[in-house]
Amino acid sequence: MKLVQKPFEMSALAACWRGQGLKIALVPTMGWFHEGHLALMRRARQSADRVVVSLFVNPIQFGPGEDLAAYPRDLQRDSELAAGVGVDVLYAPSVTDMYPTGFQTSIRVAELSKGLCGAGRPGHFDGVCTVVMKLLQQTQPHLAVFGEKDFQQLAVIRRMVHDLDLPVEIVSHPIVRETSGLAMSSRNSYLTEEEKEQALCLYRAILFAQAKVTGAVQPLSAEEMCSEIEKMIRQVPGCVVDYVEIVDADNLERCETVNENSRLIMAIKVHERVRLIDNARLCVV
Amino acid sequence: MKLVQKPFEMSALAACWRGQGLKIALVPTMGWFHEGHLALMRRARQSADRVVVSLFVNPIQFGPGEDLAAYPRDLQRDSELAAGVGVDVLYAPSVTDMYPTGFQTSIRVAELSKGLCGAGRPGHFDGVCTVVMKLLQQTQPHLAVFGEKDFQQLAVIRRMVHDLDLPVEIVSHPIVRETSGLAMSSRNSYLTEEEKEQALCLYRAILFAQAKVTGAVQPLSAEEMCSEIEKMIRQVPGCVVDYVEIVDADNLERCETVNENSRLIMAIKVHERVRLIDNARLCVV
Repeated sequence: MKLVQKPFEMSALAACWRGQGLKIALVPTMGWFHEGHLALMRRARQSADRVVVSLFVNPIQFGPGEDLAAYPRDLQRDSELAAGVGVDVLYAPSVTDMYPTGFQTSIRVAELSKGLCGAGRPGHFDGVCTVVMKLLQQTQPHLAVFGEKDFQQLAVIRRMVHDLDLPVEIVSHPIVRETSGLAMSSRNSYLTEEEKEQALCLYRAILFAQAKVTGAVQPLSAEEMCSEIEKMIRQVPGCVVDYVEIVDADNLERCETVNENSRLIMAIKVHERVRLIDNARLCVV
Repeated sequence: MKLVQKPFEMSALAACWRGQGLKIALVPTMGWFHEGHLALMRRARQSADRVVVSLFVNPIQFGPGEDLAAYPRDLQRDSELAAGVGVDVLYAPSVTDMYPTGFQTSIRVAELSKGLCGAGRPGHFDGVCTVVMKLLQQTQPHLAVFGEKDFQQLAVIRRMVHDLDLPVEIVSHPIVRETSGLAMSSRNSYLTEEEKEQALCLYRAILFAQAKVTGAVQPLSAEEMCSEIEKMIRQVPGCVVDYVEIVDADNLERCETVNENSRLIMAIKVHERVRLIDNARLCVV
């Protein structure tokens, strides 16, 4: 596996691959790889001749007071993990190469970026769109793989790609969970074992909602279900709800009743320190 | 020459050309071709195997009360003119194909879009960036040719391409003028002969400024020169100054004194009806 750090070198390599008719896949990441990331890389490996994993902790998607400085980093460890699943290039550009002096362009997906995580993290999705656009242009992939854990991000990126006619296929991959059910996240490394146990309230909420939906004989009120879940989470020490919503999986608008396209989507803060997200499809059988 | 109207058809054609190793040039236009447009097309023809001219009156770059509905259109005439200079594809998508229901993505080049035309036309350059990005993605050109008459637009597009790492070369072409000196513009068709004569105040201002710079023995104050030009224009019946500025050609910031990178850049309104722009380099000999 090759480590590339300069954008011009990445672009040249991608152009060379394109010239040879090779199929390129990109997996954009912020590093500190866990099984979730590795699953995305394996998925990319299945569908492309060349797999590029970008590793870039993108400053413009962090707000003031967020965990940009604390975000866990270990290039050596990440290199070994990526090489182990057959990645061809680990692309890890520097902040100054990505955003040199004078940089001033941004991309906004107006409606999808507003609610959910966008409400509490203003500008976050503009930063995500902008960096993803740059990475797509630098690596020229035929497909790019994103995890469903960042479900709003996935919807925003799909919309950007569709609206701007980018010639890339966006592939999504299901959430990978610990044996306990906790969704894999680089931010889990901020948690003690006890806090991880508390954070399981997210997974329990998903199981609760799915059980309710499976047993339902008539359409369920999304608002009532969200209230019940919020109540459950409030009972867990140290957990504070940011939002609990049941939305349409495509336009992220609130559902009145749970239907076959509904998604339960949640964000909590654990011990005022660690923000965690989780989501799941609510299948109506 | 082929007329293409569907984005998916344009994308397929561009992908096919790319696959054959052909070099593609794009000339983005809003139609109603004049010699200025044809010069851009000839310039593209020199450097590419395939020349695409897009013709799209882009609604999202017009503000309320601007001339979107009145903008002159004649696809038949434009087709003949483009064919005459060797264009391969005239790409004329519809508004609903470019901006279908649910479209919500926009691109902003923050600093360069603020002053000059951006001050009087809020959102204009966001609309320009967004449509140019879409056209670039749909046509996948190796180079795109823009006229210098829209000098701020050129600077904004160059910045977007640079900031987002788009793999396309932006080529600029000097302003083409009528024999009288009036800069060619589709909007000149709104003017009577008498109004065209009045609109020549822009060209006279350029000649005045260039003469002053040529004869200068010490650095000239940009502010004083702009005041003199504004005074000249105010004396012309029916002409109202929107702005007259001398700016750095790269960052569009106001110059204190005229230097080798200064650009005189102006916008006026003729008889409260027609907005005209013009600009020129102020060479210090």
